[in-house]
Amino acid sequence: MSSCSWSEKVLQLLRRMNNFHSPGSSRTRCLRFEIDGAQVGWIPPHVASLLNRYSTVFSEPRNGAVSLLPRLDSYSTRSEAVDAVLQNLRQEEPLGCLRGWRDERYSVMPKYSDPPLMSMERAATSLFGVRRYGVHINGYTVSDSGEMSMWLARRSNTKQTYPGLLDNVAAGGLAAGVGIKHTLVKECEEEACIPAAIAEKACPVATVSYTYEDQDGVFPECQFVFDLELPLEFRPRVGDGEVQDFYLLPIEKVTELLATDDFKPNCAMVVLDFLIRHSLIDPDTEPFYQDFITGLHQTL
Amino acid sequence: MSSCSWSEKVLQLLRRMNNFHSPGSSRTRCLRFEIDGAQVGWIPPHVASLLNRYSTVFSEPRNGAVSLLPRLDSYSTRSEAVDAVLQNLRQEEPLGCLRGWRDERYSVMPKYSDPPLMSMERAATSLFGVRRYGVHINGYTVSDSGEMSMWLARRSNTKQTYPGLLDNVAAGGLAAGVGIKHTLVKECEEEACIPAAIAEKACPVATVSYTYEDQDGVFPECQFVFDLELPLEFRPRVGDGEVQDFYLLPIEKVTELLATDDFKPNCAMVVLDFLIRHSLIDPDTEPFYQDFITGLHQTL
Repeated sequence: MSSCSWSEKVLQLLRRMNNFHSPGSSRTRCLRFEIDGAQVGWIPPHVASLLNRYSTVFSEPRNGAVSLLPRLDSYSTRSEAVDAVLQNLRQEEPLGCLRGWRDERYSVMPKYSDPPLMSMERAATSLFGVRRYGVHINGYTVSDSGEMSMWLARRSNTKQTYPGLLDNVAAGGLAAGVGIKHTLVKECEEEACIPAAIAEKACPVATVSYTYEDQDGVFPECQFVFDLELPLEFRPRVGDGEVQDFYLLPIEKVTELLATDDFKPNCAMVVLDFLIRHSLIDPDTEPFYQDFITGLHQTL
Repeated sequence: MSSCSWSEKVLQLLRRMNNFHSPGSSRTRCLRFEIDGAQVGWIPPHVASLLNRYSTVFSEPRNGAVSLLPRLDSYSTRSEAVDAVLQNLRQEEPLGCLRGWRDERYSVMPKYSDPPLMSMERAATSLFGVRRYGVHINGYTVSDSGEMSMWLARRSNTKQTYPGLLDNVAAGGLAAGVGIKHTLVKECEEEACIPAAIAEKACPVATVSYTYEDQDGVFPECQFVFDLELPLEFRPRVGDGEVQDFYLLPIEKVTELLATDDFKPNCAMVVLDFLIRHSLIDPDTEPFYQDFITGLHQTL
């Protein structure tokens, strides 16, 4: 039994999800990943040593950075050259994350508001510390007497990442060139059988952003967060098999759960942001109120 | 006429309000202000040179820090010793911020969740880069047809700081030992004649936090933000003379105004946070959506 309070456990979760910027992280040993002089990611030391052999694609490390060679001067030439490297690494190297190859491309750019400079296989982004964007939906209900409940998904036990853990009612990554609301409607339909007529009522309310590192590399992530009040009689249903079950839980129970290991960590962050915005955490009694908020909204 | 878009002007506002962490700020020349080995602020170079003469209170600069002498080992001895220094500086030195002396004490502590180590006159906190906490209230109405409007205050022309600018319907600093909701109810009553029965319905929804510097020093600030839906027939009234007038404006007009110089900058930030939480900014069309959110919630 841990003697930590709920508040301390939540603070620890936020620290773990921002561990790339903690003392002792690999950050000082990472190389910047640059295209055309602009940083688009972080290359961890174990990846940098593998890239040496692809000298027609990547520069030698210089001033703490590895760059794509300038001859790769368009979106398509860059995307194809890096993809060829990744296909080769996938054959030759025991990189765990590449075993989860998805044939799904993410955009690579210095900031979200910049035009994409290339695209990259989703499963490889952590090797280059490339920012990943996604959308998460808080599906909730309010009873006639005003009591709030939230729908949570239990991830399938066969998911590559975080099998069997609690998740938001629907969520998904933003693939290259696809809009945020469009992705939301698609994920709601595919994962939870929420029809478009309901999903389109979801309200954009926040982003949650953080950077963590693990054995697969560096994960700077930004999730666009939507709230979706679901009709009381509506029940989400298992769609594409990414989810094994859905539960409707009183918000107090959800609050308890987010400080446990049963939650996929970034989904717990999305719920924490919901609790704060819906006045379910009291700044006069929660000593870490402001730490929670800054921990949820870190600059990438 | 500026050719900047609304988005760019809002981004510039957020950058100005976080200029202490920008390249070229005085940060690298500031000394840490420490009590008992813990940092509680930043001392700008022009202030550090004045503190040399108070060697019974402050240490010599060492390893980039100035400390209170260890013999000042309690809340009251520290508060009194620093207050005596400030009273002397107020007489002897042309420090603009001390002309705004308020006889209002703020708590000084490493983090909000820590016990206060001393208190300090509000007008002096920027000389020591001590964090300041406050509460801001978004007072808004929703018409029967669902149209949202917001009450804004116009600050009195005789206010020491930001005279004549637009402000939230009520706001105030958190004095030492006073609660957040308590301060909210008091400020609503004093500044806007909002009775406690209405003010108590305000909902805690966020913090907005930022650090800027100007000629008066360093301002790391955290505002606890509340939303208060006001009855359609209610009108705030000028109370203690800090405000000259109140306006009820359509939310579209408020949105326009927050990118102008007519708004007190931190109040514009509080309104921006409101617009995001109330889905009045669309992440599919606002390229700086995420930059807005991280700019509003910086770690202090």
